[in-house]
Amino acid sequence: MKKGCPFGTHRVIEPQGVLPQPALKIDNTMDIYDNEILIDVKTLNIDSASFTQIKEEAQGDLEKIKEIMMNIVESRGKHQNPVTGSGGMLIGTVEKIGPALEGKTPLKVGDKIATLVSLSLTPLKIQEIKEIRKDIDQVDIVGKAILFESGIYAVMPDDLPENLALSVLDVAGAPAQTAKLVKPGDTVVVIGGAGKSGMLCLYEAKKRAGITGKVICLGHSEKSIERVREAGLADVYLTADATNAVEVMNKIKEVTNGEMADIVINCVNVANTEMASILAAKDDGLIYFFSMATNFTKAALGAEGVGRDTTMIVGNGYTKGHGEIALQVMRESQTLRKIYEELYA
Amino acid sequence: MKKGCPFGTHRVIEPQGVLPQPALKIDNTMDIYDNEILIDVKTLNIDSASFTQIKEEAQGDLEKIKEIMMNIVESRGKHQNPVTGSGGMLIGTVEKIGPALEGKTPLKVGDKIATLVSLSLTPLKIQEIKEIRKDIDQVDIVGKAILFESGIYAVMPDDLPENLALSVLDVAGAPAQTAKLVKPGDTVVVIGGAGKSGMLCLYEAKKRAGITGKVICLGHSEKSIERVREAGLADVYLTADATNAVEVMNKIKEVTNGEMADIVINCVNVANTEMASILAAKDDGLIYFFSMATNFTKAALGAEGVGRDTTMIVGNGYTKGHGEIALQVMRESQTLRKIYEELYA
Repeated sequence: MKKGCPFGTHRVIEPQGVLPQPALKIDNTMDIYDNEILIDVKTLNIDSASFTQIKEEAQGDLEKIKEIMMNIVESRGKHQNPVTGSGGMLIGTVEKIGPALEGKTPLKVGDKIATLVSLSLTPLKIQEIKEIRKDIDQVDIVGKAILFESGIYAVMPDDLPENLALSVLDVAGAPAQTAKLVKPGDTVVVIGGAGKSGMLCLYEAKKRAGITGKVICLGHSEKSIERVREAGLADVYLTADATNAVEVMNKIKEVTNGEMADIVINCVNVANTEMASILAAKDDGLIYFFSMATNFTKAALGAEGVGRDTTMIVGNGYTKGHGEIALQVMRESQTLRKIYEELYA
Repeated sequence: MKKGCPFGTHRVIEPQGVLPQPALKIDNTMDIYDNEILIDVKTLNIDSASFTQIKEEAQGDLEKIKEIMMNIVESRGKHQNPVTGSGGMLIGTVEKIGPALEGKTPLKVGDKIATLVSLSLTPLKIQEIKEIRKDIDQVDIVGKAILFESGIYAVMPDDLPENLALSVLDVAGAPAQTAKLVKPGDTVVVIGGAGKSGMLCLYEAKKRAGITGKVICLGHSEKSIERVREAGLADVYLTADATNAVEVMNKIKEVTNGEMADIVINCVNVANTEMASILAAKDDGLIYFFSMATNFTKAALGAEGVGRDTTMIVGNGYTKGHGEIALQVMRESQTLRKIYEELYA
């Protein structure tokens, strides 16, 4: 059996020397290398940006969607949308485990897992597309996929509905990082606190900051804030335009008696919110950018421009145990579970 | 006397509600607000990207360069190049200090300072352009400028030549952050270690990591590495293409006995080096992106794609005392001072 690289570089066909994600084409033959896991795929969860593009290109026609998806996998060896560059995730059952992983992975043949690495780097073969659920970006297929040694995944829980688990796992990095960062007594601002990842962050922040802390939810609309308020996820609720740095600064100043936040967590997928995040934080505060709309240069030059010594962290979608931490929230909070079931599952 | 906002929003003319940097036009009348500092400007150090564009537009003609610069300041109230969006810095003498700053600022009238906030947000009035030093992007003028309360600056040292001090202050953030991050015993990789900011980072890293640490300089060409090697700035010297993540990973693996780096500092102004930085670090390592060519999404999704739990920090050009820390290197190391005088001053 052939020996593989932990990151799957052994599967890269073109161009040579890059990792599987930036590769244009990867090898999707389903004979595993010694450190790979073979998955019998049940469902693809296509990345929302990617699926929107595919639906538009197909003008909503189901057969055309199937054709586009089959073509992508045929030409690239993975489901990476050539227009958006993005992938998604998949659910399936472990079919085979490479011998080099024995005793190293807690997985067993038969385990039902969701891969948490992007489909944009996952070798995939689709035999048949069975059902397309257009409204939730899910596609049931008959097919196989490969999980690399470095690939992250979550074992699907028995006690939570599949779609609920998936929607939570999709944003698992943010609450898990929040849980790591927030200490008792901290003042925490979650920008985009009424959104899918924002609510989980609020929950973790409130749990860690505790009775001596202060968790502030900043949202765009009164309506979405109302839902969070009813659920009691924060201590303070504010509506503001996160692209208006001065407005955000003044509102945070008011509710913190001028002290500003120890930690600012940016979960709002909107451009130009770097400056509001910086001005909401204390001079020696910490800003965690989970938003993929964050612009590196705007953050770096923005902080310098206002002479702020803040630490700014690039949101890493992965941290150890992030899946478990996020799923646990759904067990602990019936209120949040109800909201997630209504909105996302 | 009118009361000003610490960030200078009181000077914004258009559009309303934004900070001075993104503003299209700011008020450059030279009557100061109560928290402003008036500077008698001697020299503008135009940002290199901006000055290159201006020189090209003027086809190298000095009178045309003057005209373009005067027009920029006339229409915007600041020297923000409308094409590149960038500014630069200035040197001048403190002429007046707003009463609200008395006892709060260590500055005195007559101090010679360099502003370390960008010219792209600094109210400026040019009366006359006296001399243009095209090869080093410097322009001597008769004019005035305003430093906001939040504006950062460095008092020019008496014991170092002005151009040497300026070239060091230009990249002061990187070595100062390095000094804060590196602990005794750390293994540190500086990507782009042979460059202007990279060499200062190596110096600080070696000082902090000490005899039990290991500082690795990664450079692109044998020639630039040779200079760093002669200066003895690192413990290990490697040449590699920083856009080739796998090559960098393998080389770092070899010189660290497979342990990889505790801290990776990325100082190379080249795109697509995020992945090399991630793979050079330990799983729980720290990556400090000082390069302005860093792409936020590539860093965030890159770490997730290889299942790495690394902390990734957005390089903040400012940290307390960064000017002093960087200038001190020139006093401590005659070797480095000589290199800087030859290459940059």
